[in-house]
Amino acid sequence: MTKLRVQCFSLSLDGFGAGPGQDLDNPLGIGGMALHEWVFATRTFRQMHDGGEGGATGPDDDFVARGFDNIGAWILGRNMFGPVRGPWPDESWKGWWGPNPPYHTQVFVLTRHARAPLEMEGGTTFHFVTDGIHGAWKRAVDAAKGRDVRLGGGVDTLRQYLRAQLVDEMHLAIAPVLLGSGENLFAGLDLPRLGYRTAERVATPGATHIVIRK
Amino acid sequence: MTKLRVQCFSLSLDGFGAGPGQDLDNPLGIGGMALHEWVFATRTFRQMHDGGEGGATGPDDDFVARGFDNIGAWILGRNMFGPVRGPWPDESWKGWWGPNPPYHTQVFVLTRHARAPLEMEGGTTFHFVTDGIHGAWKRAVDAAKGRDVRLGGGVDTLRQYLRAQLVDEMHLAIAPVLLGSGENLFAGLDLPRLGYRTAERVATPGATHIVIRK
Repeated sequence: MTKLRVQCFSLSLDGFGAGPGQDLDNPLGIGGMALHEWVFATRTFRQMHDGGEGGATGPDDDFVARGFDNIGAWILGRNMFGPVRGPWPDESWKGWWGPNPPYHTQVFVLTRHARAPLEMEGGTTFHFVTDGIHGAWKRAVDAAKGRDVRLGGGVDTLRQYLRAQLVDEMHLAIAPVLLGSGENLFAGLDLPRLGYRTAERVATPGATHIVIRK
Repeated sequence: MTKLRVQCFSLSLDGFGAGPGQDLDNPLGIGGMALHEWVFATRTFRQMHDGGEGGATGPDDDFVARGFDNIGAWILGRNMFGPVRGPWPDESWKGWWGPNPPYHTQVFVLTRHARAPLEMEGGTTFHFVTDGIHGAWKRAVDAAKGRDVRLGGGVDTLRQYLRAQLVDEMHLAIAPVLLGSGENLFAGLDLPRLGYRTAERVATPGATHIVIRK
C-alpha cells in the first residue's frame, strides 16, 4: 500500500524547518541553509545535484538515498515550489531547480490558484492542485502506482498532513544550530496524541536522524 | 568569574523539558521520566543517587560529572523544589530528595512566598528567595565564592534567566522521545537574538548533547 513519507526534513534544535524572511535570495529563509549542511557532503547528493564523483557514504548518505527509494510521486507546498504568492502573474516561474528538477515523477503542488500542468525535463511534471491536502494525496496515490508518495514540505504543509494523520513516516534530521524564529514544526502539534512515536534514531557528526512513525 | 550554568537539562525532540500534569506522583510531568533515561546508567549518577558500584563511563557520564564540577551554589525554580503551590501551608515539605539532597551547597529556591531557610544533611541549605531572579543570582554568586552557580530548572526558570541573558552556558540533552505537550523551552524564545550559539555537540546512543554559550 502506498505510504506518505517525509524524508530528510531538516530542523534546527529549536524546531524550525526554515528561517524567517523566505524570498528569492533565501529560499530556506535567513539562516535556513545551515540546516542542510549534513546533506551536501553525501555521495547521493553529489551525484544527483552536481553530477559529481565521490562524497561520503555512511548513515547520512543512507538517509538521503532512502529518501528516493520507492518514491512514485511527490507532494509539495507552494512555498517549496517558489517565492510567488497570490495568483500566478504568468507562467514564467518553473520552480527553484532549473529545467531538470530532481523529482523525475509527477509532483503535486498545493495552491489556491489554478495553473496548467508544467512538464519539465527528466520525467518531472508539476501539477497545481487546488482542492487541498486530501485531493493532492488522492492524485499522488494514483500517480505513484503502488509506490510511496514523498511529502517534500514545507513546514506548514507537513503540519497540515500530520494533523490529518495522513503521514505514515517522517524522517527528521536535527542539525546542531539554533534559528530562533521562522517556521516551527512542533508548535501546538501534539504528535503522540496524533498517534506518532519515535521508531529510529541514528546520530552522526552532522545531524541526529529521527524516524517517527504512526 | 562566577558563571551561571545549566547542565544536563533534558528535552524531548519537540522541545519539552517536562511533561504535562506535574504532581506528587509525576514530578517530571506525565512521560517526563523518559527524558532522563540517558542519565540513569551513568557511573556518576549511580554513585550519587544509589551509592552503587559500576555504571557506564563515556560522554553521557562525562556530562553528568561536569554538571557537578566547580559548582558553588544552585538556583532552583519552586516547582523543582516541590509540588506545593501558593503560600506554604507548613514547613513539612523538604524537597523531593529526602534528608540528604544531592546539592551539598547553598540552594536558592525562587518563590513568591517567604519561608525560613531549611538546613538539610550533607551541607545542603535551601534558601527561599522572594525578590526574583536577579536577587537569587546575586545571593548565589556570593554563596559560590568564586565557583560557578548551577541553574537547575525547571523550564520556566530557565526561560526567565535566558531572557535576562544571565545564563553563560547551557547543556541540553535531547532525548529521542516526543512528549507533545508540557513545558516548552524554546517557544517564543529567540536564542540567537539573545546572543546564544551552539558551541559543542556530542551524540550518544541515549541523547544528543548540545552546549549553548553566549
